[in-house]
Amino acid sequence: MKVGFIGLGIMGSRMAANLLRAGHELVVYNRTQAKADALVAQGAARAASAEEVAQQCRLVFTMLATPEAVEEVAAGTDGFLRALPGNSLWVDCSTVNPSFSKKMATQARKMGQRFLDAPVSGTLMPAEKGELIFLVGGDAADLEQVRELLEVMGKSVVHAGENGQGASMKMVINMLLAQAMAAFTESLRLGTALGLSEEVLCQTLLNTPAAAPFLKSKQQKLLHREFSAEFPLEWMHKDLHLASLTAYEQNIALPALQTTKELYAQARQQGFGEEDLSAIYRVYLPDGAA
Amino acid sequence: MKVGFIGLGIMGSRMAANLLRAGHELVVYNRTQAKADALVAQGAARAASAEEVAQQCRLVFTMLATPEAVEEVAAGTDGFLRALPGNSLWVDCSTVNPSFSKKMATQARKMGQRFLDAPVSGTLMPAEKGELIFLVGGDAADLEQVRELLEVMGKSVVHAGENGQGASMKMVINMLLAQAMAAFTESLRLGTALGLSEEVLCQTLLNTPAAAPFLKSKQQKLLHREFSAEFPLEWMHKDLHLASLTAYEQNIALPALQTTKELYAQARQQGFGEEDLSAIYRVYLPDGAA
Amino acid sequence: MKVGFIGLGIMGSRMAANLLRAGHELVVYNRTQAKADALVAQGAARAASAEEVAQQCRLVFTMLATPEAVEEVAAGTDGFLRALPGNSLWVDCSTVNPSFSKKMATQARKMGQRFLDAPVSGTLMPAEKGELIFLVGGDAADLEQVRELLEVMGKSVVHAGENGQGASMKMVINMLLAQAMAAFTESLRLGTALGLSEEVLCQTLLNTPAAAPFLKSKQQKLLHREFSAEFPLEWMHKDLHLASLTAYEQNIALPALQTTKELYAQARQQGFGEEDLSAIYRVYLPDGAA
Amino acid sequence: MKVGFIGLGIMGSRMAANLLRAGHELVVYNRTQAKADALVAQGAARAASAEEVAQQCRLVFTMLATPEAVEEVAAGTDGFLRALPGNSLWVDCSTVNPSFSKKMATQARKMGQRFLDAPVSGTLMPAEKGELIFLVGGDAADLEQVRELLEVMGKSVVHAGENGQGASMKMVINMLLAQAMAAFTESLRLGTALGLSEEVLCQTLLNTPAAAPFLKSKQQKLLHREFSAEFPLEWMHKDLHLASLTAYEQNIALPALQTTKELYAQARQQGFGEEDLSAIYRVYLPDGAA
Repeated sequence: MKVGFIGLGIMGSRMAANLLRAGHELVVYNRTQAKADALVAQGAARAASAEEVAQQCRLVFTMLATPEAVEEVAAGTDGFLRALPGNSLWVDCSTVNPSFSKKMATQARKMGQRFLDAPVSGTLMPAEKGELIFLVGGDAADLEQVRELLEVMGKSVVHAGENGQGASMKMVINMLLAQAMAAFTESLRLGTALGLSEEVLCQTLLNTPAAAPFLKSKQQKLLHREFSAEFPLEWMHKDLHLASLTAYEQNIALPALQTTKELYAQARQQGFGEEDLSAIYRVYLPDGAA
Repeated sequence: MKVGFIGLGIMGSRMAANLLRAGHELVVYNRTQAKADALVAQGAARAASAEEVAQQCRLVFTMLATPEAVEEVAAGTDGFLRALPGNSLWVDCSTVNPSFSKKMATQARKMGQRFLDAPVSGTLMPAEKGELIFLVGGDAADLEQVRELLEVMGKSVVHAGENGQGASMKMVINMLLAQAMAAFTESLRLGTALGLSEEVLCQTLLNTPAAAPFLKSKQQKLLHREFSAEFPLEWMHKDLHLASLTAYEQNIALPALQTTKELYAQARQQGFGEEDLSAIYRVYLPDGAA
Repeated sequence: MKVGFIGLGIMGSRMAANLLRAGHELVVYNRTQAKADALVAQGAARAASAEEVAQQCRLVFTMLATPEAVEEVAAGTDGFLRALPGNSLWVDCSTVNPSFSKKMATQARKMGQRFLDAPVSGTLMPAEKGELIFLVGGDAADLEQVRELLEVMGKSVVHAGENGQGASMKMVINMLLAQAMAAFTESLRLGTALGLSEEVLCQTLLNTPAAAPFLKSKQQKLLHREFSAEFPLEWMHKDLHLASLTAYEQNIALPALQTTKELYAQARQQGFGEEDLSAIYRVYLPDGAA
Repeated sequence: MKVGFIGLGIMGSRMAANLLRAGHELVVYNRTQAKADALVAQGAARAASAEEVAQQCRLVFTMLATPEAVEEVAAGTDGFLRALPGNSLWVDCSTVNPSFSKKMATQARKMGQRFLDAPVSGTLMPAEKGELIFLVGGDAADLEQVRELLEVMGKSVVHAGENGQGASMKMVINMLLAQAMAAFTESLRLGTALGLSEEVLCQTLLNTPAAAPFLKSKQQKLLHREFSAEFPLEWMHKDLHLASLTAYEQNIALPALQTTKELYAQARQQGFGEEDLSAIYRVYLPDGAA
């Protein structure tokens, strides 16, 4: 069975490559066509549009940057949803807000299609190694249909609940990541001001139960001010923005989230949006950077 | 050699008990005398005042709640510093601010004594089991003199640097704890509002690298709203306050710290100061408690 | 010429009444029909739908609570925009976000209509007395066409710039109001904790140049805990939410805005959304209310 | 009767000059002696130390930058308190925290002296023109003794209550100023991002009841990026810090205050501490300055 894959950025390209390598027949599409070249060279079929993907597949993965991009490619004028054969399955791996995922689920259903929200936890390296964690919202039966493929791309699959709850779980994980990252750099900042070295701080803090384990993977970036993006800061800012929207929809106050969001906004405003999220450290550094 | 131990609260009583159990001769003092009873029953000598401790020992540990309490007991009118034989060693395990530790070091030196700041990471259970982490500021030689005793009470000893840097390291660790705790409860709050259960959230989040490992020990408290204090919320509030003071002294801005501090202030203001720091969750719960 | 007026809530009903009183022929519509009764009794014609308003008028005012409500009534399936004669003028007085106003302007233009965003500064009493301030975005010629009517409902008219800039000006004014209100209640809270009476505080603070003049109108509400809504707290929360969205769209960080937004969110979450915005004071009061 | 005046900075020099001009006999002292030169040229007597002031006067005013400076000059080793004739009156016009004022009151009383806390609202220009507002804490009789002098330096005198309550009132006024200033610049920032000009924004906003009247005096500074200090930003940061301390002492949460404090901290950290408090705008400007 042919599998469609739309969205071949940092994450999508690596996820699709793993599917290819595992022997699946892929039809790929990316708005910037050149991003499909490497996969086509490895045996994927190139589609000229999202619609064309739908004409060849009954299972479509999407991995896109924003809700707006997902909506356009799925339900826009040339969206793939209306071009899919009835009762096909769309699996959206993009990081979007839960109410948006629910809306997509509703639209898919109206058009006679099935939908899973299946965002992933993990960035570039886990994507490359097939070690992502899939957080899935939707019918158990639909999940079973794609479980094998998800297990090619990931090391574990969490069935969070109904449609929207994969997106919900992803959202709260990213809130944790963003706040742990900012809090850690605040600790570095205060610690160095007090005369401790960054090396001693990292070594000590990262070995206490107070530090989230993923922070270890950021240590070298922080120590060497080498902020090439594994997870671009501006994406995290977007995720915090969507979490903030969602909190408003749910009528709940989340002050720590908001303050953290503004710190990422400051970093982005200062021009660090395309760097790694660990570049949040720059907001605290005396010279804005260095 | 007799060892003095002043301050026998939740932490101090357990630390002193471990020293006793390891065969050390202890002279203990606590303002509320009854708190010394159990240790005296186990063989410790009771002193009637801090001064009296000093008259019998050349090594004194203190484990007190606030800088004010430390200053009074050490350098107040009846403080032990002036009563100690020259060149004695004072080891302060209290969680205080670095500039205060430096001030105590200076006062001790003026009176011909030696000083280590040696606050601990870890709460009730690690204290009981002798699994604390000591964060030590001061001369290496002084540390060597007490290393054996610290290793009775703890599982590891970090020499952070000169006087004040043990306190500094402790401060930044507590900043991490406080922020991780608040961020985790914000994630629980948003997740449950979105229809995920607290059980599924805890199970999933605590197994991602986004969650600080110590949070696992808070899971049952959160799920069962059972907030008996391992680490009283009001102590964490005090620590955040001292971190805030220190940031001001150092002329640095730490917005996430400040917002977190105010969340603990709200919890305390609502009457939850004597509960566990995980009771910060109450600030987010719809009915302020439940 | 007949004038359409859609949205007869707290504000709209009073604005429409002033137009009627000044001799203008009005066609009114409100989703909850009963809200039109008083105006109909004073001589306004009742329309059964927004569409029906458009069939009788070439000038339509809207005064609605949210962007969603505006979009539905104007551009929804039964929206008035498509029912208006070509080259009619739509004046939206609702408080919405600038990018939404621009979107409405574009939609109106596509359908051959003209558009002004004309939100108002001022709440119940100024609305009743015809003392609102209109903040207008759009063509000067369009503004001239309705200036006379605006001057019936308001005491001044500011032409802020092109479409969207009336909404922009309104947004920044409300940011000032919300923050001044919260800051004032923080001052009351700290002052009373320090032993000053609320009366002395109000009397002193409101006569310094540090206090925004509108705060005088809130003094009685604060002193007597009488928070009947002149400007419902939940509307201000919505406005802060829209300002937050707009800041995200513009890629700018506004930390004070975000913190203030969360305070309003807390008040709303505690059940005070329908009270006056001055009920933000309740967040600070020891017993959550009193 | 000779009047002592200690602390001749931006504010003190102008206040003392007004007393001189009104015919009072002044003995002045400033740590940096040169700051006394202009007053001596106008007829004031120069004292070589705070103690020397006390030897000549039974009424002493102080106007210093920090609680630490006040404590040293009054109660330090060479402080004036012990040198004053019994039952003299000390009037401290410095902006300090209420608990510090109370402590000074107690110390003065112990030494047989009387004390008023009498901080002022108003900066350079009001100081120069004798238009300050005095906020006085202490005995009514003591206030009556100096009312005439206060009215030379100020345009109004508020008796806030007992010792410490002058300082309390000053504290809450400065909280209002700091927050109004930051909120106003956030409004400017968002408004300009949305295409409104700073001129139109200032003109409109400053004429609404949403803007604190003192903001008018900052308009030219903001428009021309001319931030010479009337009220140095770093002093406001200190005041916010003291308010934060006080809130902690009182066990109350003031989230908006804390966020505002961190904005001033960021501005100071970026090197703008000696500029006017309106330079808080720089935190928001795209290029950190411009």
